[in-house]
Amino acid sequence: MSKISVTIYNEYVHERKNEFVKKIYPEGIHGTIAAYMRQEPDLNIRTATLEEPEHGLTEAVLNETDVLMWWGHIAHDQVRDVVVDRVQQRVLNGMGLVVMHSGHYSKVFKRLMGTSCGLCWREAAERERIWVVNPNHPITQGVGPYIEIPNAEMYGEQFDIPDPDELLFISWFEGGEVFRSGATWHRGRGRIFYFRPGHETYPIFHNQQVLKVLTNGVRWVKFSGNAETTGIGACYQITEPLETLSEKDYEQGMIEHPEEFLQS
Amino acid sequence: MSKISVTIYNEYVHERKNEFVKKIYPEGIHGTIAAYMRQEPDLNIRTATLEEPEHGLTEAVLNETDVLMWWGHIAHDQVRDVVVDRVQQRVLNGMGLVVMHSGHYSKVFKRLMGTSCGLCWREAAERERIWVVNPNHPITQGVGPYIEIPNAEMYGEQFDIPDPDELLFISWFEGGEVFRSGATWHRGRGRIFYFRPGHETYPIFHNQQVLKVLTNGVRWVKFSGNAETTGIGACYQITEPLETLSEKDYEQGMIEHPEEFLQS
Amino acid sequence: MSKISVTIYNEYVHERKNEFVKKIYPEGIHGTIAAYMRQEPDLNIRTATLEEPEHGLTEAVLNETDVLMWWGHIAHDQVRDVVVDRVQQRVLNGMGLVVMHSGHYSKVFKRLMGTSCGLCWREAAERERIWVVNPNHPITQGVGPYIEIPNAEMYGEQFDIPDPDELLFISWFEGGEVFRSGATWHRGRGRIFYFRPGHETYPIFHNQQVLKVLTNGVRWVKFSGNAETTGIGACYQITEPLETLSEKDYEQGMIEHPEEFLQS
Amino acid sequence: MSKISVTIYNEYVHERKNEFVKKIYPEGIHGTIAAYMRQEPDLNIRTATLEEPEHGLTEAVLNETDVLMWWGHIAHDQVRDVVVDRVQQRVLNGMGLVVMHSGHYSKVFKRLMGTSCGLCWREAAERERIWVVNPNHPITQGVGPYIEIPNAEMYGEQFDIPDPDELLFISWFEGGEVFRSGATWHRGRGRIFYFRPGHETYPIFHNQQVLKVLTNGVRWVKFSGNAETTGIGACYQITEPLETLSEKDYEQGMIEHPEEFLQS
Repeated sequence: MSKISVTIYNEYVHERKNEFVKKIYPEGIHGTIAAYMRQEPDLNIRTATLEEPEHGLTEAVLNETDVLMWWGHIAHDQVRDVVVDRVQQRVLNGMGLVVMHSGHYSKVFKRLMGTSCGLCWREAAERERIWVVNPNHPITQGVGPYIEIPNAEMYGEQFDIPDPDELLFISWFEGGEVFRSGATWHRGRGRIFYFRPGHETYPIFHNQQVLKVLTNGVRWVKFSGNAETTGIGACYQITEPLETLSEKDYEQGMIEHPEEFLQS
Repeated sequence: MSKISVTIYNEYVHERKNEFVKKIYPEGIHGTIAAYMRQEPDLNIRTATLEEPEHGLTEAVLNETDVLMWWGHIAHDQVRDVVVDRVQQRVLNGMGLVVMHSGHYSKVFKRLMGTSCGLCWREAAERERIWVVNPNHPITQGVGPYIEIPNAEMYGEQFDIPDPDELLFISWFEGGEVFRSGATWHRGRGRIFYFRPGHETYPIFHNQQVLKVLTNGVRWVKFSGNAETTGIGACYQITEPLETLSEKDYEQGMIEHPEEFLQS
Repeated sequence: MSKISVTIYNEYVHERKNEFVKKIYPEGIHGTIAAYMRQEPDLNIRTATLEEPEHGLTEAVLNETDVLMWWGHIAHDQVRDVVVDRVQQRVLNGMGLVVMHSGHYSKVFKRLMGTSCGLCWREAAERERIWVVNPNHPITQGVGPYIEIPNAEMYGEQFDIPDPDELLFISWFEGGEVFRSGATWHRGRGRIFYFRPGHETYPIFHNQQVLKVLTNGVRWVKFSGNAETTGIGACYQITEPLETLSEKDYEQGMIEHPEEFLQS
Repeated sequence: MSKISVTIYNEYVHERKNEFVKKIYPEGIHGTIAAYMRQEPDLNIRTATLEEPEHGLTEAVLNETDVLMWWGHIAHDQVRDVVVDRVQQRVLNGMGLVVMHSGHYSKVFKRLMGTSCGLCWREAAERERIWVVNPNHPITQGVGPYIEIPNAEMYGEQFDIPDPDELLFISWFEGGEVFRSGATWHRGRGRIFYFRPGHETYPIFHNQQVLKVLTNGVRWVKFSGNAETTGIGACYQITEPLETLSEKDYEQGMIEHPEEFLQS
């Protein structure tokens, strides 16, 4: 069996500027996630960062990528539109996408959702409890009825997203809010999983349950559908009908008075 | 009760160039729809076309519009991005949107869907039968179990759209295809209804059942939700928690060794 | 415009046995809700209780009922199956249903959901905050971004329901749980709205925001769909095809060796 | 890796009474499906029929079954309610279910859907074309853009089912109807896949593409979710809150005048 080719994108800005963040993620958030996932025998991991040429997301890299993971925060605006276009096209053609935490406000996620992806937030190191609400889904497997995070940034509703295809997790926050923390959508042939936990100033990407869910997510968004349909990215003309059509007395250019065909 | 303010956008190109089309829609597709809808006492109708300044969709017009209807075909690319941005923002803030026929490939619809909105098509004047599959929805009211169109352009699956919130109609085509012809989504506070029938070379916008469904659609997409939530178009910081937080021993800048908080 | 005919079913057991409950709901829970709703000019209210013949839900009553509201708790098992069958049939044929609080475990709701409708609960007079997560829906109109209940019984996930058609509210509880508190489904021509708040030992059905949401719910579940489709409650044979069929060389009884038609 | 344990239930009545049917399915419909699936190395196949004790679906059999397939037609009523109850409980607890063709009207499917599951039908050996509308799903994998069936019984809308979690296939029929032919739902921890093709008088269960989809379906409905949530089949009391509750001045029995807590 061939491995799943995963590319972890991280803007990688906070970790180089802020000493506090650097202590938590000395190799970057992408490095911490990559280290965990490299232990999985079915995953092949590479990383990409903002400062690389084309943010490390060249045509060649994306074409070889089965699943793209995305983390960004203060540098969303610096992601070039040509790369956003490219990622969108690859998702429509079957690349899986896992969007993490503040990636909710990335150009890539907004483009695929069609909404503003706004929310409310508070940074007060409060407790979060992420409840499983769909016991039927592979992404929720193996993490018990909930995941508890002792210190987290709060994200609260109303979260401006399209209704998910599947709602998997809902977060409770100590300060009084709730949030749809784990959800899936499909766009074209591509599957998308958004998972809320994670922030640069908390060691949440070291949490084994969070990493477990992300790994479940990677496996689930990997394309396993039908590659033979048309309609993605084009309007195909079908010149020959599949069935024999009845004779038509209506044809542009052949009839002089189309207004006589007006229906009541 | 105040009336619903409806703006019907039509690119209005075919009807001025093509004699055949002109005979079917002498006042333009928008004119035909407007004439029908002006008979409805609860609707206030205006129209907008591509060649008008800002395509007739200025800030002022959109701010006064409860429901925007959209028809376009060969001039999708000429719609300016600034107007597309504006329409998207208004939808997120509660303006309803009814997209008709070839409007599936408009910039506006693609932007809100996040997909390519591709499909397959054939122009052979074939018979279409549009079946109601949701008997529970106001949009399907009053048109019987199906609508029959004697001569139609075919649109076939796979239609590259996000899974609808509600699937209302499925079309059968004489030539052998099917199509998800009527569906709804919401984006932010705005409701969207896509309805397939209609083409410039067929008198389908004179069909009373089609016009009935469009009118049902206008009434249904009109905003009637909750205007008091936040989260649309912004990330709001909440400085004061709703609940008293427990004392925290985790705070950036206050602790010297955040790596000690790393969780297994 | 004709009024909406609403029947409020309450088992009406706690209020007659328990002095504490009686002080909160001297006319029964149904009486409190009815008193509020009778102020609405478009609603026609009647009530029904367990001890009435056929629980007050005779064929005649249900046939005249546009919307049935349901509250039950300790006497779910005493509801006769013949009445459950009757309510299900009426819902499939277009009667709206609003299920309140502990009604989640009623025979009627379980029958229509197909699941166990289990959950977890705690009675500790804790604070609940019911967040709007769909700003687009008439049921969420007019209650701000959330409703706060000072003292409530907790209901927690995992709530064993089918994925809702629309998720409208999510509750936060002081004790650490979350719950999908407001949701809709359709079954046949009937719409269903479940709303969590309310318990016999708390005065929650006196809360004006809760009553507002229930009233929104009544108006929304009222049938306004397509009454002309078939398929509800029967398998209809269509003897004459809508289209002329091609000649068939396959017909039972006419061919001697059907095994020759086996396809690879 | 352990194999998936599949039980194929077939009422097995037509095939023993009708010579024509017997020629097509000499070992019964279940026998034909079993023969195909036994070639799959990851599947372990057994069968069950109506006339066996408890229809072959004893507690012991169901407890060992990962996925149950269901075909029935003229003997739906003879299936005992105790077995229906048992199947429902197993589905809620994680057993997958694949319902085929006329199984739409089985007690088991109706129970899990909560609707009548009615439709319209015509037996005229007409052509059917089953279109893939979700290219993203493992069940649609490997069958091209559509499956063509030369001679089929027609099933038409309106099909009285709850809105599917995922709509995968839509059928076109020569006689003019459409049908939602492939769809999924989850109930509790169990996944359900309904697939329309197949009839006793047509050799459709010999069609390799139909068998491919059924096999995809078996693999997909196999439980791979979260087995650690509660709430399925019970209302669990939580006596100890997860969070420390604030002091309450509201407690049944402790306060004498609950009516003073009535909220406006």
